[in-house]
Amino acid sequence: MAEGLTAMTKREVAGRFAGLGLGSGRPVIIAGPCSVESEEQILATAHAVKAAGATALRGGAFKPRTSPRSFQGLAEEGLRLLALARAQTGLPVVTEVMDADQIDLVAEYADVLQVGSRNMQNFTLLKQVGRAGKPVMLKRGLSATIEEWLGAAEYITASGNDQVVLCERGIRTFETHTRNTLDLSSAVAARQLSGLPVIVDPSHAAGRCDLIPALSRAALAAGIDGLMIEVHPDPDRALSDAQQQLDFAAFRQLMGDLGLLPAAALESLEACRAEIDRLDEQLVALLVRRTETARQVGRIKAQAGLPVMQEGREHALLDRLAERAGGALPAEELKAIWGAILESSRREQEALRR
Amino acid sequence: MAEGLTAMTKREVAGRFAGLGLGSGRPVIIAGPCSVESEEQILATAHAVKAAGATALRGGAFKPRTSPRSFQGLAEEGLRLLALARAQTGLPVVTEVMDADQIDLVAEYADVLQVGSRNMQNFTLLKQVGRAGKPVMLKRGLSATIEEWLGAAEYITASGNDQVVLCERGIRTFETHTRNTLDLSSAVAARQLSGLPVIVDPSHAAGRCDLIPALSRAALAAGIDGLMIEVHPDPDRALSDAQQQLDFAAFRQLMGDLGLLPAAALESLEACRAEIDRLDEQLVALLVRRTETARQVGRIKAQAGLPVMQEGREHALLDRLAERAGGALPAEELKAIWGAILESSRREQEALRR
Amino acid sequence: MAEGLTAMTKREVAGRFAGLGLGSGRPVIIAGPCSVESEEQILATAHAVKAAGATALRGGAFKPRTSPRSFQGLAEEGLRLLALARAQTGLPVVTEVMDADQIDLVAEYADVLQVGSRNMQNFTLLKQVGRAGKPVMLKRGLSATIEEWLGAAEYITASGNDQVVLCERGIRTFETHTRNTLDLSSAVAARQLSGLPVIVDPSHAAGRCDLIPALSRAALAAGIDGLMIEVHPDPDRALSDAQQQLDFAAFRQLMGDLGLLPAAALESLEACRAEIDRLDEQLVALLVRRTETARQVGRIKAQAGLPVMQEGREHALLDRLAERAGGALPAEELKAIWGAILESSRREQEALRR
Amino acid sequence: MAEGLTAMTKREVAGRFAGLGLGSGRPVIIAGPCSVESEEQILATAHAVKAAGATALRGGAFKPRTSPRSFQGLAEEGLRLLALARAQTGLPVVTEVMDADQIDLVAEYADVLQVGSRNMQNFTLLKQVGRAGKPVMLKRGLSATIEEWLGAAEYITASGNDQVVLCERGIRTFETHTRNTLDLSSAVAARQLSGLPVIVDPSHAAGRCDLIPALSRAALAAGIDGLMIEVHPDPDRALSDAQQQLDFAAFRQLMGDLGLLPAAALESLEACRAEIDRLDEQLVALLVRRTETARQVGRIKAQAGLPVMQEGREHALLDRLAERAGGALPAEELKAIWGAILESSRREQEALRR
Repeated sequence: MAEGLTAMTKREVAGRFAGLGLGSGRPVIIAGPCSVESEEQILATAHAVKAAGATALRGGAFKPRTSPRSFQGLAEEGLRLLALARAQTGLPVVTEVMDADQIDLVAEYADVLQVGSRNMQNFTLLKQVGRAGKPVMLKRGLSATIEEWLGAAEYITASGNDQVVLCERGIRTFETHTRNTLDLSSAVAARQLSGLPVIVDPSHAAGRCDLIPALSRAALAAGIDGLMIEVHPDPDRALSDAQQQLDFAAFRQLMGDLGLLPAAALESLEACRAEIDRLDEQLVALLVRRTETARQVGRIKAQAGLPVMQEGREHALLDRLAERAGGALPAEELKAIWGAILESSRREQEALRR
Repeated sequence: MAEGLTAMTKREVAGRFAGLGLGSGRPVIIAGPCSVESEEQILATAHAVKAAGATALRGGAFKPRTSPRSFQGLAEEGLRLLALARAQTGLPVVTEVMDADQIDLVAEYADVLQVGSRNMQNFTLLKQVGRAGKPVMLKRGLSATIEEWLGAAEYITASGNDQVVLCERGIRTFETHTRNTLDLSSAVAARQLSGLPVIVDPSHAAGRCDLIPALSRAALAAGIDGLMIEVHPDPDRALSDAQQQLDFAAFRQLMGDLGLLPAAALESLEACRAEIDRLDEQLVALLVRRTETARQVGRIKAQAGLPVMQEGREHALLDRLAERAGGALPAEELKAIWGAILESSRREQEALRR
Repeated sequence: MAEGLTAMTKREVAGRFAGLGLGSGRPVIIAGPCSVESEEQILATAHAVKAAGATALRGGAFKPRTSPRSFQGLAEEGLRLLALARAQTGLPVVTEVMDADQIDLVAEYADVLQVGSRNMQNFTLLKQVGRAGKPVMLKRGLSATIEEWLGAAEYITASGNDQVVLCERGIRTFETHTRNTLDLSSAVAARQLSGLPVIVDPSHAAGRCDLIPALSRAALAAGIDGLMIEVHPDPDRALSDAQQQLDFAAFRQLMGDLGLLPAAALESLEACRAEIDRLDEQLVALLVRRTETARQVGRIKAQAGLPVMQEGREHALLDRLAERAGGALPAEELKAIWGAILESSRREQEALRR
Repeated sequence: MAEGLTAMTKREVAGRFAGLGLGSGRPVIIAGPCSVESEEQILATAHAVKAAGATALRGGAFKPRTSPRSFQGLAEEGLRLLALARAQTGLPVVTEVMDADQIDLVAEYADVLQVGSRNMQNFTLLKQVGRAGKPVMLKRGLSATIEEWLGAAEYITASGNDQVVLCERGIRTFETHTRNTLDLSSAVAARQLSGLPVIVDPSHAAGRCDLIPALSRAALAAGIDGLMIEVHPDPDRALSDAQQQLDFAAFRQLMGDLGLLPAAALESLEACRAEIDRLDEQLVALLVRRTETARQVGRIKAQAGLPVMQEGREHALLDRLAERAGGALPAEELKAIWGAILESSRREQEALRR
């Protein structure tokens, strides 16, 4: 399985998907409507998701629909509107290409070419989609095994383009409460087996807004590289997938829940204070655990007859923390805070000896 | 769906499952071997999982096996050994009851009666298992829908026992890389619909050790109440489920990964320091985000012409943090640390005004 | 797979299931309502299905239902009514036993003990159900593999009772137009692998009356040993499975369609003539094919320089046909009919030589 | 569902698929190798299946394969060889088109354009494949519902070409003994709902030769319009699907089993006699049933006081039978045989009166 795929290192991933931010250590968030419906709709959405921290814009211009009597997308006009939204927000555009004949057209406007679930084994499309030289997002088929999914990815990489991102979007199961069933273990396994980055699409997986936050947190906790989330200005009036698109407020809420909402998106003192309270709670929990660990250090040292403090560790520690903070927190402030933390640890260890 | 089930509040859950710790806010970790095989095996495992932070012990005495020629469990001898392990470690015991006739026998030894996947719709068993007055853990059937799962739970609660815990253990799908497929969205939905606590069993879901950490993190991130993990002293020699049982070291590693390993379980200075480094990294990330939010407070205040500091908030903050720390970190140390943190925030806000 | 099962010869099957008629060469037809609802309902149904050619009566007294709020069956009163219907019609009774505790009770009234789909892996029940010494019909679980199904059968035969009949009743799939999906290939394969007789239940498989005739014909054409069909005097008012129960007229129609309706059940001259027309059409088709084959004999003989007729074959032929007819057609009439048939063949062969 | 499809009458079907023989009342048998591999292979197969009664030739020139490292077909050279085989045997050619770009090329050589399972929802292909004006065989996707299958058919008919044949080729299920699971009820239902002819492909459904005869008989008994069977001169050396291709002898055996082997294909006296014996057994069974029905006529007449014989029916009967025989059995021979049959009926009815 996946013999023809070469595992990429994190550095290589970051290099190859520079525009998308994959491999940067921070999850990629691709957000936008199911279908591009109008200029007003796509521009409003692009600005809203950008402000809430999204890193790319999605939107369908060509729509694969079960019945020929359903809305089929705005086609090239949709692509043009996506490019306009990119021009205004700087967000790279991810959109579906349904056929080999459309590749040139879609590649003219899009930054990432998406191959949809129903086309996962459209081998002619797979063989050609890589030739545009742009990253390809390959959605898993509704009932595809990992082996078939990676085989499909190999059709793309075999053409010389290894900028392939996999997207797990839920498999068909017997459960009717959800539209599909998010198969997180396959997403994790496909990532391990192929070395390719993997995105999770909880919107199509759940098919209902109320489960999207829990599945999004789960995917990121499992180490998945990013999320693709459907967002619409007015989901009830959407021309497709109405039940699974978040409105702007719900998307902001989700990004906050994931710890990905930019601080600049907090618009009131109340919102800022709620965020600070949430952070303080997490800080206390970590500090309690740090204290317990420091006491364990004290116990081990006491048994070994070692002194409480050892020289030299603090300096190196502060350097490392400053590097980690990357300038977002001045070194002297870090020093002052860790001064207090380390003093606390010392006291606790000494307390053990009494 | 679930009309016959009454949603319990968190407080009620905590009351009803007092021994198991469900509803306490901290995830329940039920760990132990697939089958009880010998006194040595179950005692060693009980002590190991207890030390690593497990809150309950699992182990099968009666084993449902596809073929009558496979190992069927130690039966009552297995129950006796589980009770012995409880006596030594204090861990409550979770074990399967396969038939209505076994209820009295199993209830004599166990703290939680487990109904297995294959028996999810054994309605005679469901009607009677609640009568022992002990909590019942109901595993989801291999291809059961949420509606069928909750219908089965209702058979138990209808007998007057509402101490029912649901357990999602993976559904049957076409994927062969994993034994089953963890259906996290159904676990979340079943929890919302029924108000019952839900446990996830990543061992049976994945059927392979390498995916257990990612799925465990995902389940807890999704808000699931706990995990059931198979642990064996020597998985390669296990009489059942060899490929999915963690050894003691892997279980400790998992608990550390989940932030649930007691500090007292760290046995060397190196391990303690690695843990402190990990905690410091998380602390820096939170502090960076806290600083960004504080700057946003500063911007909003500046626009509104408000002063940088407001009286009265700090005192209340420290009280709240102290309550949160629950005595694990002395108040004066908390005060010193937050002194440094708040001073940092103040400086950053003032810097904005220059 | 199925190592613990011994393939039975056709003769053995016929011996072991004497009462049910399995292995006799003629398909077994088990018919009756989903649930026994009243004396009037079960007696009317028993007489109607007997007249239409059914060979056994089905009816549920204990009903496994997804919700505890659904009708659960008449219990022992239902069994008593089934026995009454048997006394009046002579049809052996097939009914479900849901639990090991019920075995003695059900065996007191029933001729065949049915283990339902949801209990296919209720191993305690499987181990004990064979002890009553009566044939056991084991329904396949909704998502069970053949290996699991035969493993379950082996639990029964391991207790010393090899009168096990398998029943395929449809598996769970994604199709919603049908309730389940009849898996005919697994029914055929399970029969080959185990040597056990296999019955098909198209009522539960399709869940809708309009597909029952096609699936019944298909099952018998595939060599399956019999059918289990739900029949109810007034399906619209049935307490369970209303959409899949045939009324009496539809069941008669089905039996006619399968060529299994006793001639004595044809109540008018019109019905008899329609049946004779149908038979004549089939006779012509066979005679045309017989003629074409006879011509081919003629061609081969002509090439080999052999005479048209060979002595001695006709006499043996008539003996064989008479044995086949089993007295239902007097020997002299057979002789007259085949006289005409053979004369036709001779003429056709001679015509080739001219 | 299927609102956009117009049900065709049998006559319309026969007209539209004239070359394929669909709607003629006799099942269509499409046979040939999975892949065209060489001139020798495809010509030998075409002649063999033609002799055994096949009505069309299949063979893949473009092969959709899970991995790009598997054999991908001979492409245009394969199409050329198929056309050569048609020229020699007169069999119409059915072959797959994988992409809209290939339509013109494939249509140049093939009589029926096949859309494969993986492309069932390749909507660009569906929209264009009908434009070649040739019949299109649409295979059902591996996990497609009937609604999705008919929706896909509607994409073809919406382009103005209603010569669409559906092909059920097995759905993905959990069973591993078979490659897929033949879903006969969906085949029957899709036929009813759409009015389109439906073919069954037992080779891909079962994925193993031993189940093909039973499934073929079942499909025809269910009223399906035809079969598509994989046949290869030497299956063990086939470049794809080795386990499910019949060799020539097995295909002949199958056609004999289905009653579709031309008498001219019987090559020895022994084979002819075995066939005649088989036909005689069926004739006896029908005559026994005819006799029982005639006795029932006698009973009804006796009760009603009617005479045994009624004038006028015999003449009309012989005319009808002669029409049915279509010249394959001379009228005077039919008259002689039915003379004996009717004489037998008369005697039996008279015997009742004594």
